[in-house]
Amino acid sequence: MRATLIYGAGDIRVEDVPDPRVREATDAVVRVVRACICGSDLWPYGSRPATEQGDRIGHEFLGVVEDTGAEVSGLRRGDLVVAPFAYADNTCAYCADGLHTSCPNGGYWGQNGVDGGQGEAVRVPWAQGTLVKLPVGEDSPLLPSLLTLSDVFCTGHHCAVKAGVGPRTTVTVVGDGAVGLSAVLASARLGAERIVLMGRHADRTSLGRDFGATDVVPERGEEGVARVRELTGGEGTHTVLECVGTETALETALGVVRDGGTVSRVGVPQYEEGPVGYGMFSRNVTLTGGVAPARAYIEELLPDVLEGRIEPGRVFDRTVGLEGVPDGYRAMAAREALKVLVRP
Amino acid sequence: MRATLIYGAGDIRVEDVPDPRVREATDAVVRVVRACICGSDLWPYGSRPATEQGDRIGHEFLGVVEDTGAEVSGLRRGDLVVAPFAYADNTCAYCADGLHTSCPNGGYWGQNGVDGGQGEAVRVPWAQGTLVKLPVGEDSPLLPSLLTLSDVFCTGHHCAVKAGVGPRTTVTVVGDGAVGLSAVLASARLGAERIVLMGRHADRTSLGRDFGATDVVPERGEEGVARVRELTGGEGTHTVLECVGTETALETALGVVRDGGTVSRVGVPQYEEGPVGYGMFSRNVTLTGGVAPARAYIEELLPDVLEGRIEPGRVFDRTVGLEGVPDGYRAMAAREALKVLVRP
Repeated sequence: MRATLIYGAGDIRVEDVPDPRVREATDAVVRVVRACICGSDLWPYGSRPATEQGDRIGHEFLGVVEDTGAEVSGLRRGDLVVAPFAYADNTCAYCADGLHTSCPNGGYWGQNGVDGGQGEAVRVPWAQGTLVKLPVGEDSPLLPSLLTLSDVFCTGHHCAVKAGVGPRTTVTVVGDGAVGLSAVLASARLGAERIVLMGRHADRTSLGRDFGATDVVPERGEEGVARVRELTGGEGTHTVLECVGTETALETALGVVRDGGTVSRVGVPQYEEGPVGYGMFSRNVTLTGGVAPARAYIEELLPDVLEGRIEPGRVFDRTVGLEGVPDGYRAMAAREALKVLVRP
Repeated sequence: MRATLIYGAGDIRVEDVPDPRVREATDAVVRVVRACICGSDLWPYGSRPATEQGDRIGHEFLGVVEDTGAEVSGLRRGDLVVAPFAYADNTCAYCADGLHTSCPNGGYWGQNGVDGGQGEAVRVPWAQGTLVKLPVGEDSPLLPSLLTLSDVFCTGHHCAVKAGVGPRTTVTVVGDGAVGLSAVLASARLGAERIVLMGRHADRTSLGRDFGATDVVPERGEEGVARVRELTGGEGTHTVLECVGTETALETALGVVRDGGTVSRVGVPQYEEGPVGYGMFSRNVTLTGGVAPARAYIEELLPDVLEGRIEPGRVFDRTVGLEGVPDGYRAMAAREALKVLVRP
């Protein structure tokens, strides 16, 4: 089959790889119907050292079950399913706590001999725990929004949930990428009173307003912090959803959070140390968030997508075939595209 | 009157200073009946640059109201009161949220012309909001425990509350100083299932066991982390109460917290940057805590002290008069004393 590999910064290739097959009794094989490119894929795309051997890449997909191992029940050939961006057994103590990303049997797509999501098919470990059946056909117009349950919308939702967003909460979202916009939509869905979106790409912030942002702040850094404070009587917002991952974004988040408030982050940190000293301490600011256990949220969010109350798939603004994936990376890195959908 | 000043590292002096008097209509003057020395006082005691002018010091006291300004109601001459370690108006939005340490009218003792607590008397700004009446006489044997409501016990309680300690929570307390022991007591009071105390001073950890610690780990650093993990099936505890303030203590805390858990800190950070990068993010660990809004907790904790259900004053193991304060600092810094009570 054909699948995507990364060989180094800027070097994405689509190549022939072995067809996946059931190896463990808990596996399934899924033919990919939709995949996509994630903002987090752009980190290795920007910096991975070049190697002779490529690595499989891609971690968001939905598709049709083609085969299942002997111990997989509740799933059968022909089922349309969505996969969260981490597989997990869904039975351990961590999974029971909703922390599937810490499952001792779990792992990430494209690592340790597991297929990546940007290909024609995927062997899914712990399939019964990992995959969630979708009650629609593979021609459904809902597929883009359903695909966001694999990662991007669940990640925005996780960010808002960990921050404690709810009615009477004011929110600042740092970053107008697909995760930031998803965090806006998730905050609106959770009833946030006010949602300030910090971003400077007009087409993106426009979608952010559609998703529920009440204010847009295009300024960055200290100027951006001053602007958010001005909008909030000098205090900042109760919660800040940091959806970028740079230390600058974290500093901005700490700058706009109200005393006693919470900074929740889902942008993969590109720093090892952060400014969490006396300044943050004296203001009783909480830092939370982390890699989203998407699996924990899919069932909860699914009805809102199926019944059309939310349309998180609007973050996709370009569609490519599998052979177009390298150009999809280029377009996202160049900010020509917000988020690229892949139809293998 | 006589009061304590700090002139530099290791240089504490008791000197004559002007008698406090009511300046603002919202002030009161309190004659100090009991004060004490805080672990956080040891930071300037260890490192303050020497100056010609000293600074007033001390931020924990209880005493008798001697005078009140025209706008102070609910308090009168002769009332025994306890002061939280930050004064506050108790009427603003932050105070209403229980975050008195962020009150725009608030501040700390010994700063900006306000008296320190280690003296014969104190002018109390925003007295009506700040002071809490105590329904006992100044000869009560409960005074040491009541004094801990000024800071140390409320700080331990804040640490536990911000961590979300409750029944079914496992807790590690990092540090066997007076705040760490208070955090043990607070966790036990909140019903924690298991409390691991990390500390290596046998007399202190023995008091920690009396306060409710179920396990004591004397090892430090990586060895200590390994020991706590061994005690908890390799996972660590749901919450960690970091009661020291060094980066090493923060690293230990991050090392012993369970994935998805919370590190709450009340030790004043002696670092500007901390290790909050991908390792913490990938495990969904939350960092919370901060300077304790003691005022928010006094009414809640008072009945348990008055009715003898808790005895947080057991952290005091030495008593000095005002002239003995410099030696009290020396004894605490040398770890001869756990916490020194002052009877002016």
